[in-house]
Amino acid sequence: MPLTDLPAEALRGYRAEHTPPADFDSFWSATLAEAEELGRAPVFTPVETPLRTIDAFDAVFSGYAGDPVRAWLLLPRERGGPLPCVVEYPGYGGGRGVPLDSLVYASAGYAHLVMDVRGQGGGWRTGHTPDPSASGETHHPGFMTQGVLDPERYYYRRLMTDAVRAVSAAAAHPGVDADRIAVMGASQGGGLALAVGGLRGDLAAVITDVPFLTHFRRGAELAAEGPYLEISRYCRVHRDQVDRVFSTLRYFDTLSFAPRAAAPAEFSAAAMDAVCPPSTVYAAYHAYAGPKDIRLWEFNGHEGGETHQHLRRLAFLQRVLGG
Amino acid sequence: MPLTDLPAEALRGYRAEHTPPADFDSFWSATLAEAEELGRAPVFTPVETPLRTIDAFDAVFSGYAGDPVRAWLLLPRERGGPLPCVVEYPGYGGGRGVPLDSLVYASAGYAHLVMDVRGQGGGWRTGHTPDPSASGETHHPGFMTQGVLDPERYYYRRLMTDAVRAVSAAAAHPGVDADRIAVMGASQGGGLALAVGGLRGDLAAVITDVPFLTHFRRGAELAAEGPYLEISRYCRVHRDQVDRVFSTLRYFDTLSFAPRAAAPAEFSAAAMDAVCPPSTVYAAYHAYAGPKDIRLWEFNGHEGGETHQHLRRLAFLQRVLGG
Amino acid sequence: MPLTDLPAEALRGYRAEHTPPADFDSFWSATLAEAEELGRAPVFTPVETPLRTIDAFDAVFSGYAGDPVRAWLLLPRERGGPLPCVVEYPGYGGGRGVPLDSLVYASAGYAHLVMDVRGQGGGWRTGHTPDPSASGETHHPGFMTQGVLDPERYYYRRLMTDAVRAVSAAAAHPGVDADRIAVMGASQGGGLALAVGGLRGDLAAVITDVPFLTHFRRGAELAAEGPYLEISRYCRVHRDQVDRVFSTLRYFDTLSFAPRAAAPAEFSAAAMDAVCPPSTVYAAYHAYAGPKDIRLWEFNGHEGGETHQHLRRLAFLQRVLGG
Amino acid sequence: MPLTDLPAEALRGYRAEHTPPADFDSFWSATLAEAEELGRAPVFTPVETPLRTIDAFDAVFSGYAGDPVRAWLLLPRERGGPLPCVVEYPGYGGGRGVPLDSLVYASAGYAHLVMDVRGQGGGWRTGHTPDPSASGETHHPGFMTQGVLDPERYYYRRLMTDAVRAVSAAAAHPGVDADRIAVMGASQGGGLALAVGGLRGDLAAVITDVPFLTHFRRGAELAAEGPYLEISRYCRVHRDQVDRVFSTLRYFDTLSFAPRAAAPAEFSAAAMDAVCPPSTVYAAYHAYAGPKDIRLWEFNGHEGGETHQHLRRLAFLQRVLGG
Amino acid sequence: MPLTDLPAEALRGYRAEHTPPADFDSFWSATLAEAEELGRAPVFTPVETPLRTIDAFDAVFSGYAGDPVRAWLLLPRERGGPLPCVVEYPGYGGGRGVPLDSLVYASAGYAHLVMDVRGQGGGWRTGHTPDPSASGETHHPGFMTQGVLDPERYYYRRLMTDAVRAVSAAAAHPGVDADRIAVMGASQGGGLALAVGGLRGDLAAVITDVPFLTHFRRGAELAAEGPYLEISRYCRVHRDQVDRVFSTLRYFDTLSFAPRAAAPAEFSAAAMDAVCPPSTVYAAYHAYAGPKDIRLWEFNGHEGGETHQHLRRLAFLQRVLGG
Amino acid sequence: MPLTDLPAEALRGYRAEHTPPADFDSFWSATLAEAEELGRAPVFTPVETPLRTIDAFDAVFSGYAGDPVRAWLLLPRERGGPLPCVVEYPGYGGGRGVPLDSLVYASAGYAHLVMDVRGQGGGWRTGHTPDPSASGETHHPGFMTQGVLDPERYYYRRLMTDAVRAVSAAAAHPGVDADRIAVMGASQGGGLALAVGGLRGDLAAVITDVPFLTHFRRGAELAAEGPYLEISRYCRVHRDQVDRVFSTLRYFDTLSFAPRAAAPAEFSAAAMDAVCPPSTVYAAYHAYAGPKDIRLWEFNGHEGGETHQHLRRLAFLQRVLGG
Repeated sequence: MPLTDLPAEALRGYRAEHTPPADFDSFWSATLAEAEELGRAPVFTPVETPLRTIDAFDAVFSGYAGDPVRAWLLLPRERGGPLPCVVEYPGYGGGRGVPLDSLVYASAGYAHLVMDVRGQGGGWRTGHTPDPSASGETHHPGFMTQGVLDPERYYYRRLMTDAVRAVSAAAAHPGVDADRIAVMGASQGGGLALAVGGLRGDLAAVITDVPFLTHFRRGAELAAEGPYLEISRYCRVHRDQVDRVFSTLRYFDTLSFAPRAAAPAEFSAAAMDAVCPPSTVYAAYHAYAGPKDIRLWEFNGHEGGETHQHLRRLAFLQRVLGG
Repeated sequence: MPLTDLPAEALRGYRAEHTPPADFDSFWSATLAEAEELGRAPVFTPVETPLRTIDAFDAVFSGYAGDPVRAWLLLPRERGGPLPCVVEYPGYGGGRGVPLDSLVYASAGYAHLVMDVRGQGGGWRTGHTPDPSASGETHHPGFMTQGVLDPERYYYRRLMTDAVRAVSAAAAHPGVDADRIAVMGASQGGGLALAVGGLRGDLAAVITDVPFLTHFRRGAELAAEGPYLEISRYCRVHRDQVDRVFSTLRYFDTLSFAPRAAAPAEFSAAAMDAVCPPSTVYAAYHAYAGPKDIRLWEFNGHEGGETHQHLRRLAFLQRVLGG
Repeated sequence: MPLTDLPAEALRGYRAEHTPPADFDSFWSATLAEAEELGRAPVFTPVETPLRTIDAFDAVFSGYAGDPVRAWLLLPRERGGPLPCVVEYPGYGGGRGVPLDSLVYASAGYAHLVMDVRGQGGGWRTGHTPDPSASGETHHPGFMTQGVLDPERYYYRRLMTDAVRAVSAAAAHPGVDADRIAVMGASQGGGLALAVGGLRGDLAAVITDVPFLTHFRRGAELAAEGPYLEISRYCRVHRDQVDRVFSTLRYFDTLSFAPRAAAPAEFSAAAMDAVCPPSTVYAAYHAYAGPKDIRLWEFNGHEGGETHQHLRRLAFLQRVLGG
Repeated sequence: MPLTDLPAEALRGYRAEHTPPADFDSFWSATLAEAEELGRAPVFTPVETPLRTIDAFDAVFSGYAGDPVRAWLLLPRERGGPLPCVVEYPGYGGGRGVPLDSLVYASAGYAHLVMDVRGQGGGWRTGHTPDPSASGETHHPGFMTQGVLDPERYYYRRLMTDAVRAVSAAAAHPGVDADRIAVMGASQGGGLALAVGGLRGDLAAVITDVPFLTHFRRGAELAAEGPYLEISRYCRVHRDQVDRVFSTLRYFDTLSFAPRAAAPAEFSAAAMDAVCPPSTVYAAYHAYAGPKDIRLWEFNGHEGGETHQHLRRLAFLQRVLGG
Repeated sequence: MPLTDLPAEALRGYRAEHTPPADFDSFWSATLAEAEELGRAPVFTPVETPLRTIDAFDAVFSGYAGDPVRAWLLLPRERGGPLPCVVEYPGYGGGRGVPLDSLVYASAGYAHLVMDVRGQGGGWRTGHTPDPSASGETHHPGFMTQGVLDPERYYYRRLMTDAVRAVSAAAAHPGVDADRIAVMGASQGGGLALAVGGLRGDLAAVITDVPFLTHFRRGAELAAEGPYLEISRYCRVHRDQVDRVFSTLRYFDTLSFAPRAAAPAEFSAAAMDAVCPPSTVYAAYHAYAGPKDIRLWEFNGHEGGETHQHLRRLAFLQRVLGG
Repeated sequence: MPLTDLPAEALRGYRAEHTPPADFDSFWSATLAEAEELGRAPVFTPVETPLRTIDAFDAVFSGYAGDPVRAWLLLPRERGGPLPCVVEYPGYGGGRGVPLDSLVYASAGYAHLVMDVRGQGGGWRTGHTPDPSASGETHHPGFMTQGVLDPERYYYRRLMTDAVRAVSAAAAHPGVDADRIAVMGASQGGGLALAVGGLRGDLAAVITDVPFLTHFRRGAELAAEGPYLEISRYCRVHRDQVDRVFSTLRYFDTLSFAPRAAAPAEFSAAAMDAVCPPSTVYAAYHAYAGPKDIRLWEFNGHEGGETHQHLRRLAFLQRVLGG
C-alpha cells in the first residue's frame, strides 16, 4: 500500500487549525452532570469461564441518561491489594466480546475493564448493550450520523458519556486502586480515550492508538475506507447540511478535548493508515496539553503496532502506574 | 456481469420451501390493531414547488405506534374527480426525497403518494422521518439487523406497519378514489408492497420489482452486494444466533405474506441481480396467491427494467385501475 | 471516497494555461457554415405517451453534414404563447431515451428539447441517431478517439455541430420563444453546452454541470474512471502520437470555447469527482467570458448535485428566462 | 483464480444446441461474391526494418466492399521456392502492430501474413486500417454491437469478409505456396479462423486458440471480463432488443461456421478463461466437421498456452503443411 | 459474501476420491527416522515477559534433518504436577510471534507449545526459524511450490517433519504430561495437525479448524484467495508439469494422512471460506479414521469460529485431556 | 489510470539524496572475487528448436559461489565473424523461458544471451536455475526479503553476482565479440543492468527500462503493486526492523551503482508506472555517471514502451555497438 497521507517529515509537524464551539465546556458539564445525577452504583457479578489465572466479572454501570452499560472487569486470580486499572474502549463496530478476548492486561497484573459500546457489537466483536436513548433520526447506515444535525441528539454524546462513567465504575470496585486508572483504546477506542482524557481530571494515563473521531473534516476528506466514510456519504446525500454536520462534530472532535487534558499520554499513528489518516493523529498529538509521546509505524495501516503496541503500552503503564 | 444465480429455465420454475411462524397472523393483526388504535387523521399541507403541472402536498400520517410518518402526495394540477392512486415505497437507504424526484405517476394522471422510510434517507435520497420507536439494540451498521433477535422489536415490524397505514392515509384524501389504490415499489419498496398486499384486503393492485425482504436465508447466502449482506455479516459475528435471526425474519419474509394476498400483481426480476437474487423473486412469485404476471430482465442487474419498467407499470395500472 | 484533486481552496483558484489553435475560429465557422448549408427544416411529429400533463414530439433536424438527428420536444399540455426553452444534451454513452425520462423541465413550464447523441445510446439510455459520417478510423473502443488524429475527422466535430444545430431546431418550433433559449447539460452534456455557448451568440443562458471535454490533458492524467480514460488508453498504445492527439483536442476543448461565450452561465463542480476532475471545471469557469456563477459540491462525485442541481437550475432559469 | 465454468469432465463433453439462420449460406455467399467483385489485386511493398533474418512487406488487399485492408507479409530472408503460409488474425482491440511483433513463424520457415483489423488497433497493438463502411449505428463503446440489430450492417460481416479475403491475398504472393495455407488466431483471431474455415474450401489447416465469437449467448451470460460484456451491457440498456441481437449474432457465431469446415483443425481452451469460457470452445470443437484435436490448459486463463501454444502450433503446422 | 462452494446439505455429505501414493508409508517412515536420528534433546530457556500469570520458555528442538526449530512453551505460573499440553501450529505466513500473542491455553491451565514455521513469519506474525535445508528450486513466490516437482525436496516434507518432532519436544519437558498431548491449528496449522495425527500414534487429541493442505487439486481449482493460488499460478506457468505437481502433493495431502489417524478429532469448516473451501474440509473429515466431530460455521469465511472456536476447543480439551 | 507519482516537469528534475554504505566497494569486490575464484568455464550446448533462422545454445556458467546458472545464447544462423552481444536479464518472477520467447535481437543480427534468474521462473516465464545458496531465512513470500536483514545473505547479492558473471560467460563464446557487449533489461532486468553497469568497467552499453531495485525506500512507500510491496509488507510485520532492512538494501540499490558506471546508457520511465514509480527511475538517471539519455512514456504504466522500446533499443545498439 502506498502512502496516501503526508510524507513522514510533514506528518510529524502537522497541526490543525481548530476551534471548539463556544459553549463546548458548558455542553459537556451539563451532559455529565445529568448522567451522574441519573446514575446508580455499578454492579459486578462473577462469571464462570474456562480461565484458571484470571477472574472475570460482568459489570453493569449507569451511562448516559442512566442507561445501563455492560463491561467486563478482569482481575488476575492471584492478587494482593487494589490494582492499577486499565479502562479500555473498543474500536468501531465491536462490543466487549467475551473475557477470553481480553487476556493481556490482567495476565500482566492489571485490573482491566472492557466497556461495551451501546448499539455496536454487530460488526466484529459481540456486544450486549443497547442504546435505549437512540432517537432514530434519519441517518446513513451506521452510527456516525445518528443525530448528527444536533449536538444534543448525536450518538457520540451518549457514548462519550458512557466512556466517562466507565472510569467511575472501575474506581468503585474494591479490587481497583482509584488513583491509578488509565484509559486506553485504538481507533474509536483511542478517540474515546482522548475525549475522557479531556473530560476527567483524575486519570493517571491516556493511551490512544490510531485514534478515530479526530479532525473530522480532514478524516472525511481523506479516508479511503472505514467509518469516516459514513460521514462523507451522508454529506453526499445531504449536500445542503454539510456545514451543520461539521458544526455538530466540533463538540465531539478529539481536537476539542485534547487541549483540556492533563494526564501523561502515549500516542501512535500509522503512516499508511487509510482509515484514520496519520495527519489527523498528529493534529491531536500536537493539540494535547499533557505530557506526551508518539510512535509512528512507518509501514503499517490501521492495524498499527498490534502486539508491538501492546508491549509498548505495558512498558508505559509500568512507568506511569507501577504494576 | 455473469449470471450468478440459476440459469433462466431453472429460475422460472424456482419455488422455495417456506413455512410462516405459527402465530404469524395473530402477530400482525395485533400489531396493526395497535397502530390503528394509536393513529390520528392524516394531515396534508400544500407545498410550493417550481412545478406547474403538478400539485404537491406534504403529508403526515400515523404509522407504527402512532409515530408520525411523512409522505408526498402528488396530484396532476388539472384534475376532475377523485383519482386512482399509487402508493409507493422507496428502496433501501432512501427517503421520499423532494416532489421533483417523483414526477412520472402524477404526470400520467394518477394520485401518487410517496412514503418516507423511518430512519432511512441518508443513503441515496433524503428522508425526514425519524424512527422514535427505535429500540437501540446491538446491530450491524444499517437497518437490517436492528432488533433482529426479537420479532416484536425488529425494525421491519415498524416499517411494514407504516406501509400498511400509508394506504389508509392516501384513501383519506378527497382527491383519491379509495377503491382504486395500488401499492408499488422496487427492491425494499417491492418487498413492502408484497407485505402490504398480504396484510390488506382492499388493494386494487400490487407492483413489485426486484423485491427485497424475500427468502431471507437464500438472499443472505447468495447476494454479493446490498443489504442482505448486513444479515450475513451480523451472522458472521453472532455465529451462535443464526437460527434465532432467521426465526425472526420469517415474520417479515414476503414468502409469508404472498400466500395471503389477493390483488392482481405485476412482478419483475433481473437475471443478473446481485442484490436481490432472481430466484428469490421467483419464489415469491410462485407463492403469491392473487392473479399475477412476471417479467424477467435477462441481462439486467438490480436496476431491473428502469424506464421500461415504468412503462410496464403504467400499462398495468391502466388495465387494473383505469386512469 | 477521498479527495483526489486539489483541496477546496486551491480548486477555487485553479486556472489553466491554454491556447486555442490559431485557426480555431475559421475551423468552426467553416464547419458550421457547411452544416447550415446542407440543413433542412426540422420536422416535429407528435407521439403518444402515457403522459397527461405533457405533449411530446419526435423531432428530426439536420446536424453535421445535414445528417438527420433526433430529439424529443416536450411541452406542458396546458400552455399559452411561446415558451422559454431548454435544450439539453445527454451525458456520455446515452441517448435521448424516452419522454418519460425527461419530465422535470416541461413540468416546470418550459419547452424542453432533449437531443439524441449520434452513435451513442448503448451505454445507459437508449438513442436512435446513427453517425453516418463516421469515418471508421482505428480507435480505442468508445467515441473519444474516433478520428482523434485529425480535427476534421474527429467525432466531436460532428457532435458539437449537432449541438449547435439543435438550438436552431428548437427555435423553429412555434411553441418556443426563440429569444429565450438556454443550453444545458451535465458531463458530456455540460461540455457540449459550453461549446455551443462559445459558438452561438444568441443564447439566453448556459447551464453546465460537472462538464466533460474540458482541459483534456489534465483530465486524461487525473481521471480515475470514465471516458477520459479512453484517451489515456489510446495514448498508451499510440505512444508516438501523444502530441498529435492533444493538438486535435484543442479544437474541442471547452477551454477554447469559454472565452468566446457571452450568455450568463451557471456551473457546478464536485470535489470528489473522479470522472471530470473539479480543477478542470474551475479552469473552464475562470476562462468563461460571460456572467457566471459556480457551486462546488464538497462531498460529491460525478453525480454532482442531482435533484439539488435541478432545483438550482430551475431557479436560475426563472431568473434569466422568466417562466 | 477459481474455475468459473464447468469442471473438466463436463467441459470435455459440452455440446451446444445451435441452429444457424435459414439463409445463412446465401447470406454469406452473397456477401463474399460482392467483395470478390469489388476487389483488386493485392499490393506488397517491401519495408525497411532492423531485422536481418526476415523480409517484411506492407500488404494492401481488398476486403469487404473492396475497402483497403493492410497486412504484414513476413518471409525468411533465406528461402528457396514458395513457402507454406500462415494467415494470422489478431485478438480484439489490436491491429497488425509492427513486423517486430510477429517473428515466430517466419523464423520457423513459414510465410506469415498478419492481417490488420478494421477500426481496431487502439486497444493493445496498433493498427492502420480504418473501417470506411462503418455505418455509425448507436452502439455500446467498442465494436461488438456496431450494427448488431441487422446482420447486413453488423461489424463482423465486414471483418469476417476481410479475413476470407486475406487468404486470397496471401495466395497471390509468389513467395507463397497457395496450396498450403493455414489460418490461425487466438481469441477474436481464433473466431475469425473458424469463420474462414467454414467459408473457404481450400485451406490446409485451421488453428484456433481460446476462440471468441463462439456461442454468443452463453458467452454473454458467463464471461466476467472481455468483449462479450459489450453485448451483455448493450442488452442491459436495450432490454427490448435481446432476441433481435442474438438473432443477428447467429450469422456470425462460429457454431454456425464449424459444421461447414473441412480442414484439419487444432483447438485449445483454458479451464479458467473468464473472457472466452471454455465450454463455448468445446461447443465449437464438437461442432467442427473436419479432423480435429483440442488441448485444455487446466490452470490457465485467457492467456491460454502462450509459448507452449506456439510450439504446439508449429508441430501441427509441420505435420499438415510440411515446412 | 455469497456461498462459493456447495450448499450446506451437499457440503455435509461431500467425500473425495483420493488414493495416497503407493510408497506413502515408507516415504514418511524413512523421513521421520532420519530426522529422529539427527535430532538432539530440546532446550528450554526461560524468558522475561511482562506477564505475571504465565511462564514463558524459548524452546529449540531438532526438526527435519536435525535443523533447529524454535517454539514457545507457555505454562501457567501457578501449577502443580505435569500438565496436559496443546501443541499449536501457526497459519500460513506466520511464525510463533511473541508469548503475548498466545495467552488463551496457558490461562486456561494447559501447557502450550507454539511452534515456529521454518522460513515463514514475514506475512503476519513474526518467526525466527530459518529453513537451512531449503533447496532453492525455481518456484512461485511463497512456500507452496518450493521443490514441488519432487516429494523429497518439497517444502512441506520439512515442515511436517518439524511438526511431528514438536510433539516429542513438548513431551520432553518436565512440566508436560506426555500422555496427554493434543495437536492443534487452524488453516495451515490445521493441516499440520492432521498430518501429525496420521503420523504419530501417541496423541490424545487433534484439533483442526478450516484446515489447509487438504484436497489440493480441488483447493487449487476453487479457492479465490490465499495460498492455494500459489499452486494454481505455478501450474499456469508450468503448464506441462501439472500432473507432476499433483503427484507430489499426494504425499502431503491431509486426505492421505486422515485414514491413518486414531486420536479423537474436532474439526470445523466455514461455509463461506474462500481460502480453504469447506468441501475440502468435509472430504478430510469423512476420511478421518478416529472418533470425530465437525462444526460448520454457516456465515463465516476463513476466520471461522474465532473466539467461539477457542471456547469449543477448550470444552473439547477438557473432555479429552481433563484439565 | 491517473498519475500517481510527480507531474512530468517535477519528474524530469527529480534527484534523490542517497549515500552508499561506507564499505560498498569492498563488499562487492570481495563478493565478485570469490565468485570468480569458484567459477569454471561456461559450457554451451546446441539445442534443437523449430527455428530456421536462429541457432540456440543452452549455456551453463558459474555464478555466485560457483553455483551453476543457465542461459540461452541465440545467434543468427547466417553469420560471419564474432557478433556484438546483448546480455539480457528477465523481470521479476520470470526465467529465461524458451528460445522462441526471445527472437528480436538475434533476428536483428546480434548475439543474445538471456540469463536465467536463480529461484525465479514460477511467476510468468519458466526458469531452470535453482538457488542452492538460499539460506532459508524467515521472509515474506517472494524473493525481495530473503535474507534482507544481512547484506551477506541477501538474495540480490547472489543474483547480482550472477548478472556480472553472465557477461563473462557471453564474452567466452567464440561467436561473440567481447569488446562489444551490452547489458539490458526491464524492471528487475533493468535494475540488474544498472548494477552490472556499476560493477564492470568493460561494457559497451547499458539499456535499462523502467528499472526496479532503485531508490528502495521511495519505491516501498509509493508503489501500489508489484514486488516493492513485498518489502513494505515485510516491514509491516517486522516493524522494529525497518532501519535494518533499508540499511541492507543500500548495498543493492541502483542509486549506489549508478555513480560508478561509465558505459553509455539508455533509460526509459513510464509516467503512470505503479510498479516502479518514475521518480525512482529519474533518481537513478541523474545519478548515472556515464553518457545517458532517457525517454518518458507519458501515458504508460509498467509495460513502458513495449515494441517501441525494442525499436529504440535497436537504434541505440546500432549506434553504440554497430551491427
